[in-house]
Amino acid sequence: MVSNFEARLERYADAAIHAGLNLQRGQRLMMIGPRLTGGVAPEATPLVRALAATAYRAGSPLVEVLWGDEALQLLRFRDAIPESFAQYSAWLPKALVDHIEGGHALLSIYANDPDLLAGLPADRVSALQQAASRGLQQFSELIGKNSTNWLVVSGAAERWATKVFPEDPPHAATDRLWDAIFRMCRVETSDGVSGWSAHLEALARRCGHLNARHYSTLRYRGGGTNLSVGLPGDHVWVSGRSTSARGVAFAPNMPTEELFTMPHKERADGVVRSSKPLSYGGVTIEDFTLRFVSGRIVEACAATGEAVLRNMIASDDGAARLGELALVPHSSPISQSGRLFYNTLFDENAASHLAVGSAYRFTLQGGERMSDEAFADAGGNRSMIHVDFMIGHETLDIDGVREDGTTEPIMRGGEWACAL
Amino acid sequence: MVSNFEARLERYADAAIHAGLNLQRGQRLMMIGPRLTGGVAPEATPLVRALAATAYRAGSPLVEVLWGDEALQLLRFRDAIPESFAQYSAWLPKALVDHIEGGHALLSIYANDPDLLAGLPADRVSALQQAASRGLQQFSELIGKNSTNWLVVSGAAERWATKVFPEDPPHAATDRLWDAIFRMCRVETSDGVSGWSAHLEALARRCGHLNARHYSTLRYRGGGTNLSVGLPGDHVWVSGRSTSARGVAFAPNMPTEELFTMPHKERADGVVRSSKPLSYGGVTIEDFTLRFVSGRIVEACAATGEAVLRNMIASDDGAARLGELALVPHSSPISQSGRLFYNTLFDENAASHLAVGSAYRFTLQGGERMSDEAFADAGGNRSMIHVDFMIGHETLDIDGVREDGTTEPIMRGGEWACAL
Repeated sequence: MVSNFEARLERYADAAIHAGLNLQRGQRLMMIGPRLTGGVAPEATPLVRALAATAYRAGSPLVEVLWGDEALQLLRFRDAIPESFAQYSAWLPKALVDHIEGGHALLSIYANDPDLLAGLPADRVSALQQAASRGLQQFSELIGKNSTNWLVVSGAAERWATKVFPEDPPHAATDRLWDAIFRMCRVETSDGVSGWSAHLEALARRCGHLNARHYSTLRYRGGGTNLSVGLPGDHVWVSGRSTSARGVAFAPNMPTEELFTMPHKERADGVVRSSKPLSYGGVTIEDFTLRFVSGRIVEACAATGEAVLRNMIASDDGAARLGELALVPHSSPISQSGRLFYNTLFDENAASHLAVGSAYRFTLQGGERMSDEAFADAGGNRSMIHVDFMIGHETLDIDGVREDGTTEPIMRGGEWACAL
Repeated sequence: MVSNFEARLERYADAAIHAGLNLQRGQRLMMIGPRLTGGVAPEATPLVRALAATAYRAGSPLVEVLWGDEALQLLRFRDAIPESFAQYSAWLPKALVDHIEGGHALLSIYANDPDLLAGLPADRVSALQQAASRGLQQFSELIGKNSTNWLVVSGAAERWATKVFPEDPPHAATDRLWDAIFRMCRVETSDGVSGWSAHLEALARRCGHLNARHYSTLRYRGGGTNLSVGLPGDHVWVSGRSTSARGVAFAPNMPTEELFTMPHKERADGVVRSSKPLSYGGVTIEDFTLRFVSGRIVEACAATGEAVLRNMIASDDGAARLGELALVPHSSPISQSGRLFYNTLFDENAASHLAVGSAYRFTLQGGERMSDEAFADAGGNRSMIHVDFMIGHETLDIDGVREDGTTEPIMRGGEWACAL
């Protein structure tokens, strides 16, 4: 293991439980993994134990972990009858919904092989993804509404690490990925809680500035992209910090560099080109272009993974419309690392991005308390999926159009146009 | 790993899924671990994967595994607030009950450290055990009624193996424990399914003989034991084979050597002495004596673990009465191994034994369909616990008293008194 690994892991766990999740005394904690593997990868064991110990010391009465084993998913593809791929766990969705409705805290841990399902039959991969999305729809909606405090973190794992650092042997690659995770999460040099808190504070200042400008439209130009996206009148820019429906302040992603808001589901027009590959359920979709008319994707093509891309945006009506719009300077630490992490949690923080699928209620003023109809009328998109894809790069310019029609530069060459 | 390990593991998985569980096409399969660790130990991974592959090939549409991590349980003891030990998982009991009521199959896998909780505060260990028993009571009752086909199997794990074979280094001990498991389960030399089926058939013949004798009382004598136990008029002797409420024939334990039936909960009198240590929730209770009056334990003492023993039988009213009575010849392969396995699944098959706590409904004629009151009136015990303890040894004599008062030898010096 890398030098002083244990000490850094402790600081990372401290930052996660206190500055990220803000676990409250008396809250149970459940740890889960990505949907398609059904649980936390065994390689995350040292991280899980550090998180559990920190949670118990913070007064949690019960820490539960839903572990997974990626090899079991592959066995299913090898040996199960094809018709069975639409079947999904009966108890898992209930367990998660009950946990959240009970007011308890949720931690999702990524330490997975981004190529797990690569090369497997696309129809079965899609059936599995759709079954998971359908099964977990209520859970996703509760998370989208911040019904409780939740957090997504990562742990280094060998298959993921060797994909990010292919020039290194597995053990060294894993050490380097841990180094990167600790650096992105600001736990390298300070104590975990204060390092992460200071970063969240800087993001909040930039967020306040964007909210004060009340842009009605954003215009993207450069590197194959020429897109205009409308923002609802009551859109809210959000950075790493959120507040749960029960009033607990938390910061749901580690790392996070992004500022994001809600696009109007009927006001995207033009062409956008991906700037990084998209890892979707174990398949990598590369170099793709989407054309929007009145908010809807009318054309999608990709150099690789086009079938999975098309299936993804055909999941339901909302899957072909935007649900999120996020700004990240090209100079973010993750981008500066020059690496692709094949994991949205990281890669979305290396570049400005969009998401197809459901919009977060909290990115619209009063959105959490609106009826589905009122939210849709305000421009909020609804879907069983929510998938981020990267569009930012070093030649991307973004302008903001204010309500009076005046235009201001927001980003130039991938960087903030004004200092704060 | 030991030579041809993979081939033997395959045969073991075949025997478990087909001859043991008799998994039906279309049945989902859930794998769980012991209650107190909350899941299957990671060391059982090769076994779990072999079982999952066999299950999918048998037409199961979905195999789910609830994994556990023993270290997390120890962390809880180290770091959690003492008042929290009565809290138990909210979702796990529901998940198990829903799974069984849905008609799906259940597999429990033991690969655990028998000393996990040794030396920890007895009050917290008891609080945890009682919370688990309370939480899982409905689940235990469904299993007790054979509502669906279920199976308990074991996998070798290092901490367990070094306890059984302390003279060997960990890796060699683990290999020896696997050897022992494969031998007990008759998958060493034949194909798994036919080896295990032939053994189950021999047990069934002995069982038929005992049922034909209709004994009203059993008398145990030898080595500190002098006990008389009454059998209800409608008691049923059961061997490894059962039939689920949905009509699926299955054999719920691997290995199994025992023939067992239901004692009358008010008709045990005298003294019984344990012949092997009892591993109860991570604590080893050794060399203990129980005195019964009219079916109830009125005195309990132990050379070690007496506090845990007393807490155990004070769990509820039924915890101080008998729920099972089982006969195992002293020449059984497990006894011949000369080893103590610190695991009831094995050790109960090395010796005749009794159990305090709940009686199995299927050991009484028509018991599955009786009301709780009718079952109790017939002598059936009910409790949230069911704990086997070993009393058989090489000088134990057992007589059967028939309804007409005549007495016949059943066992002499720990062996069957008559050949079949």
